[in-house]
Amino acid sequence: MQQSGPDCLAVINAGSSSIKFALYDAAGRDRRLHGQVEGIGTNPHLAWVMGDSGERFERRWAADELDHDSATREVFAAAATMPGVRLSAVGHRVVHGGIFHCGPVRVDDRVLADLAGLIPLAPLHQPHNLAPIKAIAARYPDLPQVACFDTAFHQTQPAIAQTFALPRAYFAKGIRRYGFHGHSYAYIAQRLHQVAPGLARGRVIVAHLGNGASLCAMRDGHSVASTMGFTAVDGLMMGTRCGAIDPGVILYLMDEEGLDSRTVADLLYRRSGLLGISGISSDMRTLRASSAPEAAEAVALFEYRVVREIGSLAATLGGVDAIVFTAGIGENDSATRAAVMAGCAWLGVVADAGRNSNAGKETGGRITADGSAVAGLVIPTDEEGMIARHTADVLGTAAKA
Amino acid sequence: MQQSGPDCLAVINAGSSSIKFALYDAAGRDRRLHGQVEGIGTNPHLAWVMGDSGERFERRWAADELDHDSATREVFAAAATMPGVRLSAVGHRVVHGGIFHCGPVRVDDRVLADLAGLIPLAPLHQPHNLAPIKAIAARYPDLPQVACFDTAFHQTQPAIAQTFALPRAYFAKGIRRYGFHGHSYAYIAQRLHQVAPGLARGRVIVAHLGNGASLCAMRDGHSVASTMGFTAVDGLMMGTRCGAIDPGVILYLMDEEGLDSRTVADLLYRRSGLLGISGISSDMRTLRASSAPEAAEAVALFEYRVVREIGSLAATLGGVDAIVFTAGIGENDSATRAAVMAGCAWLGVVADAGRNSNAGKETGGRITADGSAVAGLVIPTDEEGMIARHTADVLGTAAKA
Repeated sequence: MQQSGPDCLAVINAGSSSIKFALYDAAGRDRRLHGQVEGIGTNPHLAWVMGDSGERFERRWAADELDHDSATREVFAAAATMPGVRLSAVGHRVVHGGIFHCGPVRVDDRVLADLAGLIPLAPLHQPHNLAPIKAIAARYPDLPQVACFDTAFHQTQPAIAQTFALPRAYFAKGIRRYGFHGHSYAYIAQRLHQVAPGLARGRVIVAHLGNGASLCAMRDGHSVASTMGFTAVDGLMMGTRCGAIDPGVILYLMDEEGLDSRTVADLLYRRSGLLGISGISSDMRTLRASSAPEAAEAVALFEYRVVREIGSLAATLGGVDAIVFTAGIGENDSATRAAVMAGCAWLGVVADAGRNSNAGKETGGRITADGSAVAGLVIPTDEEGMIARHTADVLGTAAKA
Repeated sequence: MQQSGPDCLAVINAGSSSIKFALYDAAGRDRRLHGQVEGIGTNPHLAWVMGDSGERFERRWAADELDHDSATREVFAAAATMPGVRLSAVGHRVVHGGIFHCGPVRVDDRVLADLAGLIPLAPLHQPHNLAPIKAIAARYPDLPQVACFDTAFHQTQPAIAQTFALPRAYFAKGIRRYGFHGHSYAYIAQRLHQVAPGLARGRVIVAHLGNGASLCAMRDGHSVASTMGFTAVDGLMMGTRCGAIDPGVILYLMDEEGLDSRTVADLLYRRSGLLGISGISSDMRTLRASSAPEAAEAVALFEYRVVREIGSLAATLGGVDAIVFTAGIGENDSATRAAVMAGCAWLGVVADAGRNSNAGKETGGRITADGSAVAGLVIPTDEEGMIARHTADVLGTAAKA
């Protein structure tokens, strides 16, 4: 891998059955290549696209032919296809940074041990995030690796927004609201500062609506509160996650229905949300295309919960100047945006149907009418790009660009 | 008990260690006597007050001398001290009416069996509510008894407000948001209609802030949404209850700290809330009197959570015309009201410090300035009075008054 030629950074976002990756210049600005391995363990499938030519590469394996470790090697193989490029660092998405990590950090053995200690806080994500870091460190011990945390952006929240009303010792033990989707929010904060600096300095609610979904309240670009809490199951209803739920339900399911905690976790994380209510799909596109009343109910509940949580976050900001939609549903589903904006009319949102239907592409992202007291915008997020820039910042390669 | 003379109704609100009771005329309007037995099982203490004379009676027992059953008999003995009065019915507070009970109901064996089946939904309250009904039915089989449900007032909520984002079969199985404090909200809705009919027809958020605490959003006097959900532990932070909490915390406590569901329930219901955060007391008065920073933190978190949930409920109403404070803290703690109103300034609440400091006693309950876009009011609640009126309604004795 240690070729001569211009440096580049790899970004790796590893999940339970997929690895998303991208290559950037050393400044973390210019994306040269991006792709993903999906279906690890079931139906492995690699696809990646060259940034300049748009040329597309694909490959498939049998289920037992590709595991996480070999999938990581494919990322390096993809990098090697760019002639003369030297892979100089890898930035990783790591969901949980715990109490102490307020920003990205270069990984060494001590950091890795610290992050492994956080696995119980994010059992579904953290082990998969850390696995490629370990694999790469073993194979390329001198290659700098940087961990970028979903939780870090929210460390600016006041303690009152992070505190559960449990006995106070639990806060010090780390049982607190962390918030997630931090790379997305950090990117949106930066981007909003570029496209609408006046709004960026104000009271902004960002709706990251994807398969995972959360809201973040920002003042002057800093997180003030978020709907996700200790784990990524809290807050909004999601594709397969329930979001906020009465804790008494969990105790009931255990005491009365005899479920154990693993079964409850599976229920809340994988069988609830849009999938659970519709009984059809976790995918908003499928539900929008369905004529089944159950699909409509699932979508309506999703929208209702977003509108209510916007009210709650507006309270933390003392009102709202802008609502920004991002991520899969936020960027692509105009009907969800229309419903949420209608539900926020009482806050002063005046939607513009035409602008919304084309995601504000001709109005700098604006999807509200010119006189709207609260601006609505669509800003496509770029979590990998944010990780690339954070990685370059940590390694001091940003200035080389 | 079946004396001659004017009829009266008894109201019984039985908890785990206390029984509150009152006697009313047959119309359920005029309270003749009220009192409570407290400390059942530890330090039993009966106190009651005659409505006309203000004469006060007290009695104490050793711990083993008074159980729930004999405490219920003391209620009847109190009634018997009123010469010539005939106890013609008993109305009971029953916390849970399940899916089907939209209003108060006369109890028979079938109803009682149905209500016993709801014990798993409210294990801390329902058994104690039902015990005196059974005891009285055994002793006075012909005495009409009426069950009045905390959940009934909220049955007007749209399904979307009652639905958790779980697999849809759970809703039909009764795992849904019920809402509680319904007697208080029903009373406030009636009372607001008397004192401010214009507001009563509008968008109103009632803050029932006592040792248990919840908010209810009403439109035209009907419940639209509530912060309490499936059980009485959800929503706001309370005296000893945590309120809303990431479900992932519960799974973490079980998987990582090895707690069983009973220990978790004890933690969430009895050791959290104001008590848990302060480490001092569950009583707002004690915390207000304390100079400890932990007390101030507990109070601030309580207020913060109320303000956020008001934002969430305002979203269900599309804005708010009035906020009504009631119950122990809501009626008596002007500092909590002041903080909540300040946190709701963005909604258009303009507090009047003087009016607030005397709970609006000279301004018909109003504690906001005359020009405030959102009216703030204090209205003392009367849950027992509401139960008395519901009981009279069910038995057809309301018209006799």
